[in-house]
Amino acid sequence: MPNVLVIHGPNLDLLGTREPEIYGRATLQEVNQRLQQEAGELGIEVRFFQSNHEGEIVEAIHEARDWADALVINAAAFTHYSIAIRDALEAAGMPIVEVHMSNIHAREPFRSRSVIASIAHGQITGFGLGSYLLGLHAACMILAGKQA
Amino acid sequence: MPNVLVIHGPNLDLLGTREPEIYGRATLQEVNQRLQQEAGELGIEVRFFQSNHEGEIVEAIHEARDWADALVINAAAFTHYSIAIRDALEAAGMPIVEVHMSNIHAREPFRSRSVIASIAHGQITGFGLGSYLLGLHAACMILAGKQA
Amino acid sequence: MPNVLVIHGPNLDLLGTREPEIYGRATLQEVNQRLQQEAGELGIEVRFFQSNHEGEIVEAIHEARDWADALVINAAAFTHYSIAIRDALEAAGMPIVEVHMSNIHAREPFRSRSVIASIAHGQITGFGLGSYLLGLHAACMILAGKQA
Amino acid sequence: MPNVLVIHGPNLDLLGTREPEIYGRATLQEVNQRLQQEAGELGIEVRFFQSNHEGEIVEAIHEARDWADALVINAAAFTHYSIAIRDALEAAGMPIVEVHMSNIHAREPFRSRSVIASIAHGQITGFGLGSYLLGLHAACMILAGKQA
Amino acid sequence: MPNVLVIHGPNLDLLGTREPEIYGRATLQEVNQRLQQEAGELGIEVRFFQSNHEGEIVEAIHEARDWADALVINAAAFTHYSIAIRDALEAAGMPIVEVHMSNIHAREPFRSRSVIASIAHGQITGFGLGSYLLGLHAACMILAGKQA
Amino acid sequence: MPNVLVIHGPNLDLLGTREPEIYGRATLQEVNQRLQQEAGELGIEVRFFQSNHEGEIVEAIHEARDWADALVINAAAFTHYSIAIRDALEAAGMPIVEVHMSNIHAREPFRSRSVIASIAHGQITGFGLGSYLLGLHAACMILAGKQA
Amino acid sequence: MPNVLVIHGPNLDLLGTREPEIYGRATLQEVNQRLQQEAGELGIEVRFFQSNHEGEIVEAIHEARDWADALVINAAAFTHYSIAIRDALEAAGMPIVEVHMSNIHAREPFRSRSVIASIAHGQITGFGLGSYLLGLHAACMILAGKQA
Amino acid sequence: MPNVLVIHGPNLDLLGTREPEIYGRATLQEVNQRLQQEAGELGIEVRFFQSNHEGEIVEAIHEARDWADALVINAAAFTHYSIAIRDALEAAGMPIVEVHMSNIHAREPFRSRSVIASIAHGQITGFGLGSYLLGLHAACMILAGKQA
Amino acid sequence: MPNVLVIHGPNLDLLGTREPEIYGRATLQEVNQRLQQEAGELGIEVRFFQSNHEGEIVEAIHEARDWADALVINAAAFTHYSIAIRDALEAAGMPIVEVHMSNIHAREPFRSRSVIASIAHGQITGFGLGSYLLGLHAACMILAGKQA
Amino acid sequence: MPNVLVIHGPNLDLLGTREPEIYGRATLQEVNQRLQQEAGELGIEVRFFQSNHEGEIVEAIHEARDWADALVINAAAFTHYSIAIRDALEAAGMPIVEVHMSNIHAREPFRSRSVIASIAHGQITGFGLGSYLLGLHAACMILAGKQA
Amino acid sequence: MPNVLVIHGPNLDLLGTREPEIYGRATLQEVNQRLQQEAGELGIEVRFFQSNHEGEIVEAIHEARDWADALVINAAAFTHYSIAIRDALEAAGMPIVEVHMSNIHAREPFRSRSVIASIAHGQITGFGLGSYLLGLHAACMILAGKQA
Amino acid sequence: MPNVLVIHGPNLDLLGTREPEIYGRATLQEVNQRLQQEAGELGIEVRFFQSNHEGEIVEAIHEARDWADALVINAAAFTHYSIAIRDALEAAGMPIVEVHMSNIHAREPFRSRSVIASIAHGQITGFGLGSYLLGLHAACMILAGKQA
Repeated sequence: MPNVLVIHGPNLDLLGTREPEIYGRATLQEVNQRLQQEAGELGIEVRFFQSNHEGEIVEAIHEARDWADALVINAAAFTHYSIAIRDALEAAGMPIVEVHMSNIHAREPFRSRSVIASIAHGQITGFGLGSYLLGLHAACMILAGKQA
Repeated sequence: MPNVLVIHGPNLDLLGTREPEIYGRATLQEVNQRLQQEAGELGIEVRFFQSNHEGEIVEAIHEARDWADALVINAAAFTHYSIAIRDALEAAGMPIVEVHMSNIHAREPFRSRSVIASIAHGQITGFGLGSYLLGLHAACMILAGKQA
Repeated sequence: MPNVLVIHGPNLDLLGTREPEIYGRATLQEVNQRLQQEAGELGIEVRFFQSNHEGEIVEAIHEARDWADALVINAAAFTHYSIAIRDALEAAGMPIVEVHMSNIHAREPFRSRSVIASIAHGQITGFGLGSYLLGLHAACMILAGKQA
Repeated sequence: MPNVLVIHGPNLDLLGTREPEIYGRATLQEVNQRLQQEAGELGIEVRFFQSNHEGEIVEAIHEARDWADALVINAAAFTHYSIAIRDALEAAGMPIVEVHMSNIHAREPFRSRSVIASIAHGQITGFGLGSYLLGLHAACMILAGKQA
Repeated sequence: MPNVLVIHGPNLDLLGTREPEIYGRATLQEVNQRLQQEAGELGIEVRFFQSNHEGEIVEAIHEARDWADALVINAAAFTHYSIAIRDALEAAGMPIVEVHMSNIHAREPFRSRSVIASIAHGQITGFGLGSYLLGLHAACMILAGKQA
Repeated sequence: MPNVLVIHGPNLDLLGTREPEIYGRATLQEVNQRLQQEAGELGIEVRFFQSNHEGEIVEAIHEARDWADALVINAAAFTHYSIAIRDALEAAGMPIVEVHMSNIHAREPFRSRSVIASIAHGQITGFGLGSYLLGLHAACMILAGKQA
Repeated sequence: MPNVLVIHGPNLDLLGTREPEIYGRATLQEVNQRLQQEAGELGIEVRFFQSNHEGEIVEAIHEARDWADALVINAAAFTHYSIAIRDALEAAGMPIVEVHMSNIHAREPFRSRSVIASIAHGQITGFGLGSYLLGLHAACMILAGKQA
Repeated sequence: MPNVLVIHGPNLDLLGTREPEIYGRATLQEVNQRLQQEAGELGIEVRFFQSNHEGEIVEAIHEARDWADALVINAAAFTHYSIAIRDALEAAGMPIVEVHMSNIHAREPFRSRSVIASIAHGQITGFGLGSYLLGLHAACMILAGKQA
Repeated sequence: MPNVLVIHGPNLDLLGTREPEIYGRATLQEVNQRLQQEAGELGIEVRFFQSNHEGEIVEAIHEARDWADALVINAAAFTHYSIAIRDALEAAGMPIVEVHMSNIHAREPFRSRSVIASIAHGQITGFGLGSYLLGLHAACMILAGKQA
Repeated sequence: MPNVLVIHGPNLDLLGTREPEIYGRATLQEVNQRLQQEAGELGIEVRFFQSNHEGEIVEAIHEARDWADALVINAAAFTHYSIAIRDALEAAGMPIVEVHMSNIHAREPFRSRSVIASIAHGQITGFGLGSYLLGLHAACMILAGKQA
Repeated sequence: MPNVLVIHGPNLDLLGTREPEIYGRATLQEVNQRLQQEAGELGIEVRFFQSNHEGEIVEAIHEARDWADALVINAAAFTHYSIAIRDALEAAGMPIVEVHMSNIHAREPFRSRSVIASIAHGQITGFGLGSYLLGLHAACMILAGKQA
Repeated sequence: MPNVLVIHGPNLDLLGTREPEIYGRATLQEVNQRLQQEAGELGIEVRFFQSNHEGEIVEAIHEARDWADALVINAAAFTHYSIAIRDALEAAGMPIVEVHMSNIHAREPFRSRSVIASIAHGQITGFGLGSYLLGLHAACMILAGKQA
């Protein structure tokens, strides 16, 4: 049974209270519960990690090398400048699925640039909570070797 | 039962024969069959349209205004310059899901720029055939009003 | 009696139904009728051509070389990238009046760049249906050699 | 009977003597007479103002707030850098029609940038004296609420 | 006996009538006759295709995969933006020789950028009809494995 | 019998030993012999000049004004920055054919910029030794006034 | 008792009537009265100057060299291009406090560039009338040598 | 009595020892004491937070949502790249006053770009300790609804 | 005896008091006396005009069309943005010599760009008062037809 | 005996396991042992610090002000954006030697930009573990005042 | 009696034969004779050096350190890229006067950039042979300490 | 015993006399003696080459292919534009160590760009004579296969 780590970047602990018209009204806990449920249906084990500290995310990725088979990451603001996270992801040696709740290509210009995208397996952006759900599906497909 | 139009852009009629290490070995017909099957499971009606002609894609989008509830589009090369398709999509008045089989952010620099992305609901890139499958799921979620 | 060809670019067949706050509520047929009427008052013969196909517009311009004295063109999305239409217009050997219904300088940045403008006689932008009417006037003035 | 102010920017007092192949042989006085005549036919009252001083143009726009219904402005060189005039026009609270005798998109690159265009109702460029005549027509159409 | 497809892009059907000081006075038919003759001398079979439609050129390239050994293409205006044609050429799996009658590096700046050049075997530009003749020679050399 | 000077730029004295997968295995002497032979068939007189010194190439061009009818030049690295050579070529008063063995548009970005191209008659790039051979043919065609 | 000159740039004579949601409802006279009152409390002498003419502002700065100890300037539109005012300020030999009522960093991109900022002592932007009040305080602090 | 949080970014714990000609000789403790005193006079409650850790600042902003009415922030180096802090500030739902001790527009070019400025209420830069004092005043004015 | 107008741009009325290490200690009056003396030796009539008002400089150039044979202009700050002055100079129909006391290529980057230079006969920069003296010489040489 | 602090930035705790073809097979511990040994030979005291947290590195630099004479820093990913570390280094008041194991000028373009380099004494890049060894030597030379 | 070295850059040995409408009909020898004569009148000793070799110019500048008091240099094409010559000039320790016969600001864009200008005393451009004559005058003025 | 060639680029023959605060007071001869001594200690054979002529450096590199095992090069000004030297180095087939005495990242912006760096093994910059010494060490480490 494959293990997947879901990483939430900075300010996502505010989910449900911050700009709900963009990010929805579900709290981070509720999001994680929904993902836990989906993981059950997909037959995968999923763990969650949220941090507002770049260094903690780097280290969570390092530790995942010991137990995880894939990573689903919404790096939030770090998406746009954290080369440290990029380097950690590149060194992780497992498939990376980059997700964003909002459509980063339809907001301020600086949000359309991801320093992670070019080393990820793929990117899913714009579907709110759905982006995470699709990200879990994508991770499963990759792990099952079913991608075309 | 919602209707979804899946549009394949230029050169995708070569699927299965062109750069299979990037695009996989399934032909367009096989891809469509796989999508048909997935659509059945998702409880949606799906139609397919492929063209190498920008104008035909514009007009397929126009016609979809009469019967479709959502669009899943892999605009292929047109992604990067066809403002005509962008304008047609913007005028379509329905959710647009942009998909790409390859990770457009990990190839030549000009491929990371999509003139469609900012008017789409969201974008899925990098999962091969899986990008289409996830795109159908995304369309369903949007139509079901389930996105967070 | 001078002959003028009026060309409508892609998506303009949707006039009256697409973003009426920008493009007005008149259909393309009604626009053409209004232009026909104005042409009558100006003492010119006017024909209309709309296409969503770049190649058809190129060829309509080629054919106009045989009978038309001036061109009024709203190239719509093609304005921003169709060098093929630019080349056809440059080869047409007659005055070109470029028109746009919306003010292309007050929208997305990419819309303010026209690959046609530098080979046109002049440009009229922002007056809705009025842009076409003024375009016909402009063509008449040029043909009558009245421009200052 | 609507009132329209026509503003001529710097160096336009040289009309008729400066680069006649671009600007024609009519003097500013003759241009104004021609516009006066056209205004009569259009049923509008028109006044004229020329200045080589940015500050005077700013103040002429301020004063027009008391009596004018629309502005037709050929800001000439100020088009390309006078944000002061842009701000005055934006504060004027009436439709602005920007005109240029030459085709600013077919000359030196710096001339294709207008700091006024994005706050104008529309722009007419390239038709010599005709640009002003069309500008008066455009102002009338806007005031008559006839634009599409 | 090797087969070569010669593709002429948009507006080249006007050859002989459009800007003869740049493109010469020979019509497209005459150009093709001259190339046919040269092909005979070179011992190759040559076919010709001209279109103003991007999609038709894409499909002509697709079809050439079944019978041709090399492509000589003057993509004309499409050179500068048609990534669809680029992708078709890249998928063609045969040597591509890019030719231009005029020196694209000595005209408007946008003409010096070719989206095709980096996937072509080589580029020949500036020799009028001669560019095609040299292009046939180049194709022969490549096919004969004679290039250094 | 027309005279043609063939100029080889810096590092081309290493031909045959440097990156043979790009430049082939023929030495400069062998290349020149092959060109001599081709020149004989074309009925032209050809002389060769190689230098790693920009100034010597400038002066070779100056001297060619006295005896040569055309220049075929592979300026190698100087292509990208030697305005001195550009000025010498412009002052030479004879047709210039620019050649490159590798496809300069498919290598490092800085190689696609030629400071010579805009004052050359044309450019041939990507055909290895063949680029020189085609360059000689091009020079003959220009001298014979046969270009379209 | 230190003397401070407060300069208001172009269009600020419209205060209270122009975009009150940005600039507030107080007229320039009322703003000056409020500043006069604050100056009294701060124990400084304050004079006011408003002009829509760049040259007059330049000369007001020149004259201030004879009597003023500090300058508070809201150069309005001139902020973005008047190097003449910059040079006058640099030559003034006294502390310059740059103020803006609106937040220039949150409006059109061209407004975030100030040609004055790098030669000013500091900049205060975004607090409406408050920007002027804070500007007077800042000038006092500088003159009192109290700045950290 | 309104509550205001004053945030000091990285390296500001060195105040008084680092580049005193730019930042003054007061230590952070002394700066805070001076601000405490000013707050007393202004009738506001003020708390202080300094950190060299981006994540801690993000979280201090999160917590301030529960008790603070306004934020005064000198983000120091983070000003120029921490989108995480920008997002936290945007989610804080209270007025933000951005302050800088040095004039960031008069130093290295990269310092003039603030990723925070466009979501702040206003910015005060260049007055040393005075920037903080003015920032407290500005926060009071905003809270008192006195800004013009 | 040829007539030359010498124009001094904004802030040059401060000569002798502003940054004397750059501009020297001579006042504008003394500079003009020195130029008068040089003009006498050169056998030309010289008049002077200084203004801080762009519009006045434009009009001084207009008037010079009636009596002057050449213009020597130090446009100072206007050099970098006054297209109005550029247009006036271009319309003046006489040789323009652009001078600068300081070396504009060795100061802030924005000072190295002159909007006048490309329509001037030539430019002299960096020699203090000497730049004007050399400018008079240059004007004489041009008028005498002695330039090489 | 001089003291030197060696700082390792984010992800360098993975040394020996991450991309060994770039970074070698020695673990961080082994690297430090080798450096310790070299330090002994050089007659310097060396301490080590690794962190994935920007803030911790900032504070390690602050603390080094009390005991260290020089810093050798491989800031890894932080090299490219951490202005906080740059500011800490600038405030450290001791020589800084910047080192990189890989040649940052031969990798992705964003890696060639160091925000630290301009305030370092010098930079050593590309020699693997050797970069650190050379960095220790460099620090010794600087401290010994032996640099030319 | 001061000594001045006049340096002529590449291709200037062609003077009189190359583009005489730009560079005049005088040969280099005649130019030098005219300068010799002017030098006599100015009471200075002048020597000449022309080379098409960057290295020779560098060394001529080195040698001039032993005997010359000032340099007048027309670096021709080297102006735009020879940092080697820039460095030599900067090391020369004497006043540098940069001259150009043509107006480099009115030709191809790349010619307006001089890598020498920022380390020269001043620049004179556009007056043909006159640029050299004025350059000698300028050198004299600098040496005589007469510049303002 | 390995052989190393040390190359000094243009103007380095002035060492000891040019900007000693940057380059030190040792002459080139003294620098070479110091390097000779260090080479002795390192057990390598070292030869030196200095030239102000790009072509001579190219040829020295060519010749080194016959006898040298590694190259240490301070290309000085050529660093920034000599693609000819870059190509020669790339063709040399041996390790290249790029050194600079000054910190090229802390000087004029154009100096931070090296056209050589991406094909060198590594770069050492900023340590004066020490850069050469470290460069010799680096070459030894590479040759000894000791780099991590």
